[in-house]
Amino acid sequence: MNTKYAIGIDIGGTNTDMGLVDRNGNCIRNIRFSTSDHADVERFVDCLVDHIEILISDINMEELSGIGVGVPNGNYYTGCIDNAVNLNFNGKIHLRDMIRKRIDAEVVISNDANAAAYGEMIYGAAQGMRHFIMFTLGTGVGSGIVIDGKLVHGFDGYAGELGHAILHPEGRLCGCGRKGCLEQYTSARGIKRTYLELLELSGSKFSEKELENISSKEIAEKAVQGDVLAIQTYQMVGHALGLAMANAVTFSSPEAIFLMGGPVKAGKILLDPIRKSFDDNILSIYKGNVKILVSGLDENQSAILGAAALTNKV
Amino acid sequence: MNTKYAIGIDIGGTNTDMGLVDRNGNCIRNIRFSTSDHADVERFVDCLVDHIEILISDINMEELSGIGVGVPNGNYYTGCIDNAVNLNFNGKIHLRDMIRKRIDAEVVISNDANAAAYGEMIYGAAQGMRHFIMFTLGTGVGSGIVIDGKLVHGFDGYAGELGHAILHPEGRLCGCGRKGCLEQYTSARGIKRTYLELLELSGSKFSEKELENISSKEIAEKAVQGDVLAIQTYQMVGHALGLAMANAVTFSSPEAIFLMGGPVKAGKILLDPIRKSFDDNILSIYKGNVKILVSGLDENQSAILGAAALTNKV
Repeated sequence: MNTKYAIGIDIGGTNTDMGLVDRNGNCIRNIRFSTSDHADVERFVDCLVDHIEILISDINMEELSGIGVGVPNGNYYTGCIDNAVNLNFNGKIHLRDMIRKRIDAEVVISNDANAAAYGEMIYGAAQGMRHFIMFTLGTGVGSGIVIDGKLVHGFDGYAGELGHAILHPEGRLCGCGRKGCLEQYTSARGIKRTYLELLELSGSKFSEKELENISSKEIAEKAVQGDVLAIQTYQMVGHALGLAMANAVTFSSPEAIFLMGGPVKAGKILLDPIRKSFDDNILSIYKGNVKILVSGLDENQSAILGAAALTNKV
Repeated sequence: MNTKYAIGIDIGGTNTDMGLVDRNGNCIRNIRFSTSDHADVERFVDCLVDHIEILISDINMEELSGIGVGVPNGNYYTGCIDNAVNLNFNGKIHLRDMIRKRIDAEVVISNDANAAAYGEMIYGAAQGMRHFIMFTLGTGVGSGIVIDGKLVHGFDGYAGELGHAILHPEGRLCGCGRKGCLEQYTSARGIKRTYLELLELSGSKFSEKELENISSKEIAEKAVQGDVLAIQTYQMVGHALGLAMANAVTFSSPEAIFLMGGPVKAGKILLDPIRKSFDDNILSIYKGNVKILVSGLDENQSAILGAAALTNKV
């Protein structure tokens, strides 16, 4: 193929980020516009298509491998967004068809964690790897699984929801309606909740407002400064993630497990307990053979690069 | 390909079963010989090769797609058996090379649960399916995972050890040295252990010998006859399996999950609690889309058929 470029589009609840990406993973031109300002999906797609046209205005269409879209609940097989709770557009949105009606290019849609995994493989630290798992930590916990160099989509396109593997059957209530999902313990909100629970147990007094506004980042900073409860919080979070990762290894025996997202910026405070728990809980036949790594992509561009990578020809 | 036959070999701790299988999954000729009588792997392979020669004596070698071997800790990539604790042959056994030195045919080696999954896909109830998981319940719990019509081997050939996913981090000690693995609750021995624990809690008096000799099959029979503790045992086993299966679905989103092995003969006594737990614990996006099915292969031939299927050309 002689294609030189791909367009990557990351649709989030607040903003949509898109860019023209060359085959080396350089984002040549970026556009950001508001997702949440568009209550009507038709108007949103109008705006999206206008911006795609701006991005492709300087290149020949023969040079474009395609348009990749990473979006919560994006389905690779159907090209639809299915009931994404964080978007204004409810129900089933036939996004691929809506774009292709207006732009003559291949359009590939998947969820944002799958895009992150593929971005890592095409442009990031997983280059050359054929078996790995990506965990994305943020408001929730997503995952993308690569086996034999291909993203796992499964029978219906919804594979890779490890944030909703049940870790504690009688544990915290999850937004999905069940109890004890991994993301309730390891997302930014889960980290905060653990810290607040420990604070409450310790009998410390804090104002409601202080508690409400504290972020996982501030808890990490407290941990670095030696705050015992903050350190304990990250130990518990790391323990949960390490165990979940050790269990994921029994499924696909990957070469590496990657981490991406805001809470990962805590660095050693989070990674050391993860690695300890992973090592304690991994089955002996895998021991020492599975690396735990942080994404090698620039976080400001990783979502666009991941989406662009879905076209997989750049 | 014009191949008409494959040889399937199932190496167990006690016996080795092998057969010549036609492309429709009929086992035309069977041989069984003792594995455990051979303390020396060289003598075992001598015996194995003699029997292979008997099986192929009536066909042309051009008609043979290959020789498939299902064996505990069999590694697809290396063709070796690695430290199988239930076999007399310790360490790393280069079985594929040992056979190929003597017989000019393709030799494919994998573990027995992977072979079971592939047998189901080629000859059994998973024909036409491209995404499914096989759980084999026996002395231990094995699993074989098929994604996009291919067995998942992973980076090092050890994928699919779901019997060693940790269900209860502080639970029963497992033979692998860790605590709370799924197989400690859902293997034949796990079922028996649950029943004995419930008996002990209830204060019932039984002789040591009675307890030692009871089998998961007898506990299933008691459950059918209305024995409350036996019913409760299978409810707990089904609960654990249903939860583990619901978690496995978040990984690969399969079309179906299959069950095979002795304890599955308990039928409704086991399957009803599994289905209830699976339904209670599955993430809503998958609900109603994943079937739980029993293997469609004749249990006396399933291991040979599974091994033969590994050659995947019949």
